[in-house]
Amino acid sequence: MSSFIRQQVDPNRPDGYWVETFPFQASQDATDPPHLIGYGLGTSQADSKVLLYLNPYNASVAPNDPSKKDLPWEKREIAELRFPVACTIADISGNGLNDVILSDEYGPSMDDIWPDGGRVSWFENVGLNSNVHWRRRFIGKSPGMHRLKAGHFTRTDKVQIVAVPIVIKSSDLTSPAPVIIYTAPNDPLASPPDDDSVGWLNETPFPNSFRLVHDVYIFKREGQLDQIVLAGREGVSLVWFDTREGWLTKNLGLGCPEVPPNPYWGSGSVAVAKVGNDHTGYMGSSEGFHGNIVSAYIKPPSSPQNTLDGVNWTRVVLHDFGPLNAGHTGSIHQVICADIDGDGVDEILVALMGSDPPSWEKTGVWCFKPIDLEKGTFTRIKLSDDSAGRIAIGDLTNRGLVDYATISYSVPGYFESPGPAVNCYASAPIRAQRLNDEVLFLLPNPTEAKIIDEVEFLDVSSRKLSLVVLPARTGFNVGTNGGVKVILGELTWTDANGERQSRTQATTPFGTASNIVDSELGMVEAGPDGAAFMLLKPSTTSGTPPYSDMSQLVAHNIFPPRFPADIRDMQFPWVKVEDRPWANGRFKDLEFYNLIGFQVKLANDSLQHVCHIQLWTAGVGVSAGFHNHTGDFFCEIHSCIVNGTGQGGMSWATVADDIFDANDPDPSQYNSIIVPDMHEHGPLWRTQGDGLPAFRRNSSIDYPWHAWLAGPTGPAQAFDVWIAFEFPPLGAAELRPNTIVPPPTTYLLRHATSEIVATVRDGDSTDGTPIIGTPLDSSVQASPQQWAVNVVTGTKTLTIKNVGSGSFATTNWPPVSGQSLAGSRSLALLGITSNWVFTEHDGGSVKIWLVGTNLVWTLNVNNQVVLEVERTGDSKQSWNLVPVLGPVETAE
Amino acid sequence: MSSFIRQQVDPNRPDGYWVETFPFQASQDATDPPHLIGYGLGTSQADSKVLLYLNPYNASVAPNDPSKKDLPWEKREIAELRFPVACTIADISGNGLNDVILSDEYGPSMDDIWPDGGRVSWFENVGLNSNVHWRRRFIGKSPGMHRLKAGHFTRTDKVQIVAVPIVIKSSDLTSPAPVIIYTAPNDPLASPPDDDSVGWLNETPFPNSFRLVHDVYIFKREGQLDQIVLAGREGVSLVWFDTREGWLTKNLGLGCPEVPPNPYWGSGSVAVAKVGNDHTGYMGSSEGFHGNIVSAYIKPPSSPQNTLDGVNWTRVVLHDFGPLNAGHTGSIHQVICADIDGDGVDEILVALMGSDPPSWEKTGVWCFKPIDLEKGTFTRIKLSDDSAGRIAIGDLTNRGLVDYATISYSVPGYFESPGPAVNCYASAPIRAQRLNDEVLFLLPNPTEAKIIDEVEFLDVSSRKLSLVVLPARTGFNVGTNGGVKVILGELTWTDANGERQSRTQATTPFGTASNIVDSELGMVEAGPDGAAFMLLKPSTTSGTPPYSDMSQLVAHNIFPPRFPADIRDMQFPWVKVEDRPWANGRFKDLEFYNLIGFQVKLANDSLQHVCHIQLWTAGVGVSAGFHNHTGDFFCEIHSCIVNGTGQGGMSWATVADDIFDANDPDPSQYNSIIVPDMHEHGPLWRTQGDGLPAFRRNSSIDYPWHAWLAGPTGPAQAFDVWIAFEFPPLGAAELRPNTIVPPPTTYLLRHATSEIVATVRDGDSTDGTPIIGTPLDSSVQASPQQWAVNVVTGTKTLTIKNVGSGSFATTNWPPVSGQSLAGSRSLALLGITSNWVFTEHDGGSVKIWLVGTNLVWTLNVNNQVVLEVERTGDSKQSWNLVPVLGPVETAE
Repeated sequence: MSSFIRQQVDPNRPDGYWVETFPFQASQDATDPPHLIGYGLGTSQADSKVLLYLNPYNASVAPNDPSKKDLPWEKREIAELRFPVACTIADISGNGLNDVILSDEYGPSMDDIWPDGGRVSWFENVGLNSNVHWRRRFIGKSPGMHRLKAGHFTRTDKVQIVAVPIVIKSSDLTSPAPVIIYTAPNDPLASPPDDDSVGWLNETPFPNSFRLVHDVYIFKREGQLDQIVLAGREGVSLVWFDTREGWLTKNLGLGCPEVPPNPYWGSGSVAVAKVGNDHTGYMGSSEGFHGNIVSAYIKPPSSPQNTLDGVNWTRVVLHDFGPLNAGHTGSIHQVICADIDGDGVDEILVALMGSDPPSWEKTGVWCFKPIDLEKGTFTRIKLSDDSAGRIAIGDLTNRGLVDYATISYSVPGYFESPGPAVNCYASAPIRAQRLNDEVLFLLPNPTEAKIIDEVEFLDVSSRKLSLVVLPARTGFNVGTNGGVKVILGELTWTDANGERQSRTQATTPFGTASNIVDSELGMVEAGPDGAAFMLLKPSTTSGTPPYSDMSQLVAHNIFPPRFPADIRDMQFPWVKVEDRPWANGRFKDLEFYNLIGFQVKLANDSLQHVCHIQLWTAGVGVSAGFHNHTGDFFCEIHSCIVNGTGQGGMSWATVADDIFDANDPDPSQYNSIIVPDMHEHGPLWRTQGDGLPAFRRNSSIDYPWHAWLAGPTGPAQAFDVWIAFEFPPLGAAELRPNTIVPPPTTYLLRHATSEIVATVRDGDSTDGTPIIGTPLDSSVQASPQQWAVNVVTGTKTLTIKNVGSGSFATTNWPPVSGQSLAGSRSLALLGITSNWVFTEHDGGSVKIWLVGTNLVWTLNVNNQVVLEVERTGDSKQSWNLVPVLGPVETAE
Repeated sequence: MSSFIRQQVDPNRPDGYWVETFPFQASQDATDPPHLIGYGLGTSQADSKVLLYLNPYNASVAPNDPSKKDLPWEKREIAELRFPVACTIADISGNGLNDVILSDEYGPSMDDIWPDGGRVSWFENVGLNSNVHWRRRFIGKSPGMHRLKAGHFTRTDKVQIVAVPIVIKSSDLTSPAPVIIYTAPNDPLASPPDDDSVGWLNETPFPNSFRLVHDVYIFKREGQLDQIVLAGREGVSLVWFDTREGWLTKNLGLGCPEVPPNPYWGSGSVAVAKVGNDHTGYMGSSEGFHGNIVSAYIKPPSSPQNTLDGVNWTRVVLHDFGPLNAGHTGSIHQVICADIDGDGVDEILVALMGSDPPSWEKTGVWCFKPIDLEKGTFTRIKLSDDSAGRIAIGDLTNRGLVDYATISYSVPGYFESPGPAVNCYASAPIRAQRLNDEVLFLLPNPTEAKIIDEVEFLDVSSRKLSLVVLPARTGFNVGTNGGVKVILGELTWTDANGERQSRTQATTPFGTASNIVDSELGMVEAGPDGAAFMLLKPSTTSGTPPYSDMSQLVAHNIFPPRFPADIRDMQFPWVKVEDRPWANGRFKDLEFYNLIGFQVKLANDSLQHVCHIQLWTAGVGVSAGFHNHTGDFFCEIHSCIVNGTGQGGMSWATVADDIFDANDPDPSQYNSIIVPDMHEHGPLWRTQGDGLPAFRRNSSIDYPWHAWLAGPTGPAQAFDVWIAFEFPPLGAAELRPNTIVPPPTTYLLRHATSEIVATVRDGDSTDGTPIIGTPLDSSVQASPQQWAVNVVTGTKTLTIKNVGSGSFATTNWPPVSGQSLAGSRSLALLGITSNWVFTEHDGGSVKIWLVGTNLVWTLNVNNQVVLEVERTGDSKQSWNLVPVLGPVETAE
C-alpha cells in the first residue's frame, strides 16, 4: 500500500468546505499538474473568498528549479461569495481553458436556507497572473443548491450542468428536491456579467423523486451520454437520459435503513470503482447523510462490465466508525475511488471531518482496499490525519502518480475542526525518515510494487544519486550516460553491441562490471522480481573530475521538497576518517574521508534490511587499509564513481589469513583489480559451493584481507570517490561442473527411469505437503505436475515452484540422505533448503542438487521424491526436463 | 542525546512572545508539574490576553486517568493587557502560592515606545478554577520596560524585582537604560488594586551603565544574595550587591564586536551552565540583540567553581546562523542552559524565531552540547522545529525528566511566524515510530544512558507491559509483584532469601527462571552496562487468569498521551495463526493466536537491533508445532505470562535433527520443561564452546526441533499466554572445566614464569597497539599495566580492558597459534577475538583462553604477548592475577 507525504498548501484558513482540482487546460490530453480550488462557506459576518492555489509543480507557475527548497502554493482570489457550497469545472467559454462553476447564497445551514438563494454561476477563467475576480455570469438558481457537476446528459454539443439542492427549504428533510439540468447557450460569453436576470435554459426531469441528496457522482461512459449517480435518502440512485426512452432512473442500492428517530438514512456519498478494464468494478459509499458507515456495492462474478444499470448490486458494510452524535450525524463527508497503489484496482478513500470530542479514528482519510471482491472483503489503512471535508485526486506533484489534496471541514455552527488547512498529500512509495546523522529509506518490496518511484537525494562528484523502485518487467529510462547499481532484484538491457546485460546485487566474483547503461535510449528493464537500484545521473552541479581538492567534492542534499524539512536540511559532510570515533587512532594524516549514510530497508513489518550505503574518498597513494570484517556481518560491494588516477581499485589477499601481514602487505600475496570510473566489483568474500557465502564461527562473513588502494602518487592530487554497499549475506554466481541453467519456463520433472513425474500431492498449497511421483496425466497436463523453474537473481541456482499449489520444492529439515521433499510457500534464508542446481548428465537428463550439498533428487520405494547422496552414473537420480508445450498456467 | 516528542498546548494563537513555567506552589519543595503562562504583545487594535495553560499532568487539574487519550491544556485568562512584554513569578502575597509579575504598555515596537508606559504590576493568584482576571496591583513604571526577574538582590526578607528597560525612548539605541530594583512593601496586599498611583519603593543603582539590555539572567548563590547577569550592548555584565561594598559590577565578556553600520553588538541573551557540582561551569550566550551567533564563555581548568566574578572568562564562538537581515537582526531570541540528557553537564538550548525567507535552520530549538569544555568544543543537534520566541524548562510531564515548552515568535510589524502556537516538548529517551502494523522502539544505549525512561505500551492478560531503560548501577522500583525480562545488559536484586539474583537476555540453557522480582520494596539495579528490560506490572484492566475465552484476552494499547496519535490509536489484535499469511495452510482450527509486534532497536546510526517482540496464546491441548528456524536468524527466548493449565512449556528434541519426526513426535525423543506463570526459559539452541551459539551453513542458528506445548486438555479451556523475544545471536553461560570468574576489578596480569606484566605499549589507545611484557613498575603501578576484568553479561567469558589506553585485549586476526595480541577499542561480534575465559591451574595461576578455542596467552621470545595452543602443565602459559591494591584508576 502506498503512503503519502504531507505538504502544506494553505495552513491558515479561516474555515473549510470544498477542495477541487483545477486543470488549467480543458483538454483531456493536457498533462500539466492541476491547481487547486479551495473555500469554506464563510459566515453571516464574513463572505467566503474562493481561492485558486497555484500548483508550484506546474512549470507555468514555477519553472523547474532544483535549488528551490520550498514550494509555496501561491493564492489567487477568484471570487468573494456569500455561502458558496458546490463547485465543478468545465470549459464554458470554449477557449480551451477551464472555467469554474459555483453555487452560492445557500444560507448559514440546512436549518437556515436562504429562500431566494441557491444561485448557480460560472466564472470566466481570466488567467493566473491576474489577481482580479473572475467574471461571473448567471446560470440559474434553486434554494438549497448543494451539488453541481458538469457533463453531457442529454446532448454532447453543449456543456451541461446537473444541479441538485439538498433541501428546498429550511429544516425540511422530507420534501423532495429537484434534479436540474442546465444547458449552456450558444454563446455563453454573450450574457452580461453579474446580471442575474438572464440564465441558462434548464429542465427538471425528476422534480419530486429524490430527498436529501448529499452528493452526486458522474459516470462517464465510452461513446454514450453521462450517467448521474445520486447519494441521498433513497440510497444510491442512477439517473440518465436514453435517446429513445428519455429520462430513466434506477435504484442501485438502498444504503443504510431508516431507524427512527434518526432522519438520515440511505446514502451520503458514492463513487464508482474501476477494476482492471471494468469501469464499474464496484461502488463505494458512505451512509447516511454525514454518517459513519462505509459500504461497498459488489456484483456477482459473472456480471456484465462497464454498466451500472445492468447489474444487481449487493451492499456490504465495510466499517462503522461508531455511534452518531445527538444530532444523528457522524464524521464522513465524502467517498471517492482511485487506484492509489497502481495495481489496476481502485481503492475507496473516505474523507472524515473529525468529531467532538476529537478522535484520530474519525479525522482524516481512510483507505479501504479490496482483497476479495467476490466476498466483499477489504482491508483498511489510514492515509492522513488532518480533517478532510473533501478529497481531490490528481497528479499534483507531476510524477505520474496519484496524489490527493484535502481541505479541513470547518463550518461555524455545525462542526469546526481546529486549524483549518488545505494540504497536498504526495504519493510516496519510497519513504525516508531521519535517524540521527543518517537517512532511513523505506522501500516498497519491488516484487510487489506496481508503480515506479524515484527519489533523488545526493549530488556529489559529478553524479546525481537517486533510489528507484521498479516493478517486475517494467522499463525505465536512465537517461544519457546514466549509471545503475542494483540493490534488490535485477536490471537488464541490450547494450550497444546487441548483447544482453544483466545487473544484480553482485557481479562476477573478483571481477568488475560497468554501471553505465549503454542501451538504446538508456532503457533498462526490471527482472521478474522487480528491482531497486541506485541511479547515478550525470550532474554538473558537483563539478567535473579530476578532483584535486576536497573543497570540490562538496555533497549536495537534493531531497525533493515533498520530503520533511529535517531530511531536506541535513548536511552530508565528508569527515576525515581519522576523526571518526571508530578510527581509534588509525588513519592519521591520510587524505581519506567518509560520508554517511543511508540505511535502506523494506517497509514491511520485519523491516527487512536491504543495505547500508556510505561514500568514501581517498587521495593518491592512500591505502584504505587492508582489513577483515570480524565484528560485522555483511557482504560489501563498491561502486566507483570517480577513479582519480585510473589506477585505484580493490586488492585482496591470495593467501590464508594467518600468512598475510596487513600492516606490511607483500605485493606477491595479493591480487588487485582496477575498478574504473562507474564500475562495480564483484564478491571478494570466500564462498562455499554454488556461491553461498562462507561464514566464520561467529557467523561473520569469511573474507580474505582486502583494501581499496588508491592509485599511485603523481604530480597532482586526484581523489577516488566510491560508494560502499553493505548487503546482508547473499549468494553469488559460482559454478559446479556441468551446471546448466535451463530457460526459465514451465516444465514437467520426469523421473528418468520411470514414466512418473513429480507432483505436489493433490496440488495442496499447505506448507509441508509431500512431493510425490505420479503417472503423467497427459490428457490434462494437470498443473500440480507443472513446475516453474526460475533463476535466483545473481546466482546459477534455481527455484522450482509448483504451478498447481504455488509452493516451492523444498527439502524437509534437515537436508540429509533420505530426507523427503515437500512444498513450501516460503523460501529459506539463502535458499539453503529451497535452492537447486541442475547439472547435465546422460545426454539431456539432469541431476537436481540441493544448493551447496552432495544431495540430489531421487524416488524412494514409496514413490516419494527424496534426497540421496549423489552416485556417479546412477540413472535413478536423473530427471528429464520436459517443457510444457500446451497452455501454460501462470506461475504467479 | 535525548529527543523530545511534541504535544500541542495551544495550536491556534493570534501571536506569540513569552512563555514561562508557572509552579502553582511557591515552595522549592513542591513537586507538582508547573503550568504555563503564554502571551503575545498584542496589537494597537487588539489587547493581549495573558493566558495560564493548566498542565494536564498536574493531578490538581486532571486526576490520573489512564483511559484518557487526549490531554488538552485548558486555558485561563488571567489578564488582558496592552503590549505586555516581560514576566516573572514570585509569591508576593506570602500565601505560599506564586503570583505573576508582568510589565505592559511597552508600545508596538522599539521604534514606538509609549513614553508613559513600561508599567510593572503584580497579579494576585486567585486559583485555577476561576476564570476572572487576577487582581492587579501597581509596582512602578519606566518606559521601554523589557525584562523582569524576581529575587533577593539587597535583602532576603522581602521579594525584590529587578526591572530593566531595553531603551528609554523610541528608536534611541544609544542612551543607557536604568537597572531598577523594586522591593515589596510589608503588606503587598494592602495596596488598592488597579491603583497606579501607589507603587513599591525602588532604587536605581546603575542609571547610566548599560545599553540595549535584551535579556537578564539571575544567578542564585548558596547562602548569598542573588547576582544579576545582563546581556546587552556592553556584552555580558554582572551586577550585584555586596553587604560591605555596596553595588558592584564586572564585565564578564564583550560579546560580538561592533561592526558599523550594525547598531547591535555585545550580547542578546545569556545563561549560566552547571557542570557537575560547579554551578558556573560555563556560560552560553547569543550575540548581539536578536543576533545569529551562539557563543560560550569558558574558563581555564584551574578556575574557581561556583563564582561568576572570580573567573577570567574566554569567549568561544560556537556557531553563526548566517548573515543578518537588512535591519541587522537575525533569528535567535534566547538561550537557556539545562541538563537535558542527565549527564550532569548542562547543554545550551537556543530559541530561534524563524526567518524571512523561512529556514529550517533558523526556526526552532537547537541544542549545543559540550564535548571538551577546556577546548570549547561543542556538538549541536536540533531538538524541535517550531518557531521559538522563548523556552521554558521544567518537568512538565511529571516524570522526573527535563521537558521544555516554547511559544512561537510572532509580533506583527517585526516578525510573524506562521501558525503561532505554544508547544510542550516531552523528554523522550525512548522513542517509538509506527511501521505498518508494528511499533519500532528506538532506545538510548543503556551503556551510555544517564536518565531512566519507561514507556507503557500494552495491557494484556493481567499485566501492564512497558519498556524501561536503566543507566548503569542505577536502582529502579518495579513495584509489588512486578516482573522483568531483560533485553539488554543485566538486572540484579537480592531476593527474599537474601540471595543475589541476576537476569540477562538469557538464563541457564534448558532451564527456567522467574521474572518476578521478590526483592525488598521491589528494587532492582542495573549492571555495569545498564539495562533495557520489559517491565510487567500487575493489572486488573485485562482481567484475571485463567482465561477461558479469547474475548477475555483483549490487548489494550496504553501508550501514554505524549506519543503520536498514529501509535496511540493502533490496535493490537490477536490474529488466529491459521489466518497469518505465513501459515500457508498449517495450524488449521487450532486455538492458537499471534499478536504483533514490537521491533526494538538502538537509536544510533546503525540502528543496532535489540530484539523483536511478539505475543502468542494457545488453548489447552494445542501444540504450537515442533519447528526449526532455517529461514531466520535469531535466538528465541519465551517469557510466559499465564500458564493456563500450569503444565504448558517448551519441549526440544534430544536427538539429531534427522532422527526426529516433527509431525509425529516421539515423546522419548524430546525433553520438556514447564515454563510457569511469569517465568522465562533459557537458551534452547545448540552452542559451541564457552556458550557461543552454533551456526548452520547459512548462518542461521542451529536449533534442535522445539515447540511450545500447551497443557493437556481438561474440563475447561485455559489459555497460555507467552511473549517471544527474538534476539540477534548471543553468547550464553557454558563452562569449560576449571573455569573461574574472578571478582570484577583491576588486576596486573603477571606472567607466571617471569616477573614481567602485560602492558599496552606506551598506553597508546590507537587500535592495534601491541600488548607486550614489561618489567613491573611497582613504584607507580602505571596504568598501562593495569587491566579491568569484567564479565560479559550472561556468560562466563570476560573482557580485559587496559586502564591506561582504554583498549580491550584482542587477538589480531586470525586467531591462530603465534598470533599477537593488541589493544582495540571495539569488541568483536560475539567477542570472537576479544572475549576470554580464565581457567585455574597450578594453585592460583590462570590460563587465559580465547573464547571457543584451544589458544591461550603466552609470551614469545620478543616479549610480546601472543596466543599459543594450550599444552597441559606448561607453566609459561600461566598468568597470575594480581589485584591492584593501590589507587585504582577508573576503567571508564
